[in-house]
Amino acid sequence: MMSSFDFAPLFPAGLPAPTARWTGLAKYSFVGGNNDSEQVPLDELVEAANAALRREGRNLATYGLAHGPQGYLPLREFLVTKLKRDAGIICTVDDLLIVSGSLQALDLVNHTLLARGDTVIVEQDSYQGALNRLTRLGVNVVGIPLDADGMRMDLLAATLTDLKDRGIRPKYIYTIPTVQNPTGSIMPESRRAELLRLSANYGVPIFEDDCYADLVWSGQRPPAIHAMSPNGGVIHIGSFSKSIAPALRVGFVVAPWDVMSRMLSLKTDAGSGALEQMVLAEYCKPHFSTHVPALTKALRTKLDTLMEALNEQFGTAAEFEEPKGGIFLWVKLPDQVDTLKLYEAALAAGVSINPGPEWSTNKKHSSSRLRLCFASPTHQQIREGVAVLAEVCRREFAVPARSANVEKARA
Amino acid sequence: MMSSFDFAPLFPAGLPAPTARWTGLAKYSFVGGNNDSEQVPLDELVEAANAALRREGRNLATYGLAHGPQGYLPLREFLVTKLKRDAGIICTVDDLLIVSGSLQALDLVNHTLLARGDTVIVEQDSYQGALNRLTRLGVNVVGIPLDADGMRMDLLAATLTDLKDRGIRPKYIYTIPTVQNPTGSIMPESRRAELLRLSANYGVPIFEDDCYADLVWSGQRPPAIHAMSPNGGVIHIGSFSKSIAPALRVGFVVAPWDVMSRMLSLKTDAGSGALEQMVLAEYCKPHFSTHVPALTKALRTKLDTLMEALNEQFGTAAEFEEPKGGIFLWVKLPDQVDTLKLYEAALAAGVSINPGPEWSTNKKHSSSRLRLCFASPTHQQIREGVAVLAEVCRREFAVPARSANVEKARA
Repeated sequence: MMSSFDFAPLFPAGLPAPTARWTGLAKYSFVGGNNDSEQVPLDELVEAANAALRREGRNLATYGLAHGPQGYLPLREFLVTKLKRDAGIICTVDDLLIVSGSLQALDLVNHTLLARGDTVIVEQDSYQGALNRLTRLGVNVVGIPLDADGMRMDLLAATLTDLKDRGIRPKYIYTIPTVQNPTGSIMPESRRAELLRLSANYGVPIFEDDCYADLVWSGQRPPAIHAMSPNGGVIHIGSFSKSIAPALRVGFVVAPWDVMSRMLSLKTDAGSGALEQMVLAEYCKPHFSTHVPALTKALRTKLDTLMEALNEQFGTAAEFEEPKGGIFLWVKLPDQVDTLKLYEAALAAGVSINPGPEWSTNKKHSSSRLRLCFASPTHQQIREGVAVLAEVCRREFAVPARSANVEKARA
Repeated sequence: MMSSFDFAPLFPAGLPAPTARWTGLAKYSFVGGNNDSEQVPLDELVEAANAALRREGRNLATYGLAHGPQGYLPLREFLVTKLKRDAGIICTVDDLLIVSGSLQALDLVNHTLLARGDTVIVEQDSYQGALNRLTRLGVNVVGIPLDADGMRMDLLAATLTDLKDRGIRPKYIYTIPTVQNPTGSIMPESRRAELLRLSANYGVPIFEDDCYADLVWSGQRPPAIHAMSPNGGVIHIGSFSKSIAPALRVGFVVAPWDVMSRMLSLKTDAGSGALEQMVLAEYCKPHFSTHVPALTKALRTKLDTLMEALNEQFGTAAEFEEPKGGIFLWVKLPDQVDTLKLYEAALAAGVSINPGPEWSTNKKHSSSRLRLCFASPTHQQIREGVAVLAEVCRREFAVPARSANVEKARA
């Protein structure tokens, strides 16, 4: 559409850069929270859509199906049961808000608690969508390094003390404790308890993002931090994007009423999509607890394929900790690899990756790291894509050495 | 859920008041954009859900169904056809953005163009959701009085001149030209042309909200302002909330790429709900053009019931212009009626109404006015609800006089 009207002088200062035109997914796409299309429970979703529409479809004529601003009641009822069973969270439907994906939850929590110039604490390597939002809001983001058990409590304690000495009370501690994004760790129960003690001592609430928590290889997870909290100072969010399908934009928040009532005033969207809530509730009640182990099993085989391909193609040049669940692997390449540059070169070769600096508050630590998502590509695409990536790395950064590859192949 | 953690000190200044707990819809609900539940095309929506899920359900594993950030391609293709046929708009799928209801469109346009302290022009009586957003953004809102043909161009011209003299360039002129909310007028083509001339002369773009434009009694509507624009300085938004079902949160924006590319950068929700887009596209292609006339016919009979009930219960005390379409009636009561007070008293009696001051920039003009939505209640509920409302008015404001009612009944 041609426009001779010049809108540019009307744009306010501080707008993000314009988006480029969509050109499709890369041939080998290792980015995004996309899932395994073979695992979408198609027959059951069709049945659920039929049943829910036949029974309650006429209610679509009323905003929010007349269930109020917190969302479709049967879906909240399912979540009350699910959260108790899986995460140990005791809550009622009144403590739950259904949102349009957990990204909307991030926005609502942020707008309820944050003003420009505020300080928040996050895990040093963390979800890009969370970090970008905080940057846009003009918030000071303090990253705490992680180890194999998640956020390090010694460094968190030191940071809280330091901030307190400077008269700064952070607005929250954001954590992804159960299948951390991007490192894939699970914070043990004892560390969760320590985190809660620090939260209480310093009067800083915890913002717990559990959106990958269903996808744990062992099927066992510690109780949610929310479930362990003695004082209610935890806001808990989750999603159906990872357990069912990401294109269904349905997430949820568990929060005390003091926070909930503020979030509701900021949720001015006339409700989240009702059809998706209806279909999910109808599907999840009978099928969720059998679907998730099957999905997780399939994802685990893709992780194995990815790790094998990396070992084969990169040898010792690609280092990683095996994640405890989820859909991504956090990979360390040799220090000379700048993954922001690798991103560009790989994309030109048909491979998309998440460069580490976009997923971290520590640009130096993350400059040679990258996140590879393995749920969406097929096993064959994983193998081919990693081979192309290795070839690009070799060409651009001289790693992995050809010999590493050959040695590995001979081993 | 009990929380001893005190979140209150963490809330930033300027948060809106907390939302009260949901207590359900009023017995007689004349508020909100709710529609006629009898007109939800249930069988066809079930068929559409089946067909779309069977064919493309596996794509739900990928964000946005891999159709990019502008939304599901078949729905954009339907809109290209529909907008050309109904509104005369010539556009391509690249000019369209699917959003989570037209409220998200308002947010995206506002955040693309507005900063605190900016000025915008609106119709004096206008959509509450639009007015509230502008207030929250700290924008100066200038309302232009309406007549039976919509926004008055003489007063708009005078306002634009006055603002220009004061060095102020408004960011946009927001109009609901086709079934104006709340007055129900349709701006004739000649006035649309005049509006476009003023827009071009003063360099102020037009923000055209056409979300009720499908619901016109005559089935005939003027071309969209967007379609008539010689310079492309029009952003056009619409919705499926009024034509199909409001609980499906699907709207759209037509905008030049300069604006579109900025909106896309602000739309950080990982896409609008895919299932609703899939079902709508599947449903609308074969059924939209027959469904809408049937829906409109049913709505028209409810309007007739509402106008009859008002005449019967209020006599000459209730004045209104017959709307040209839509789902609401804008009613003037005698000057002594304060509809903000009436709202409270009526709600206590089980009747919810929209008080005029919430739908107007002119509190004096609107203080004795109210908006009554008629699509959702049954014919019987309309009659009973208006009777209760009249009784409350009599008790609280001594209007309508008992005699008016009786005179009318005898007439």
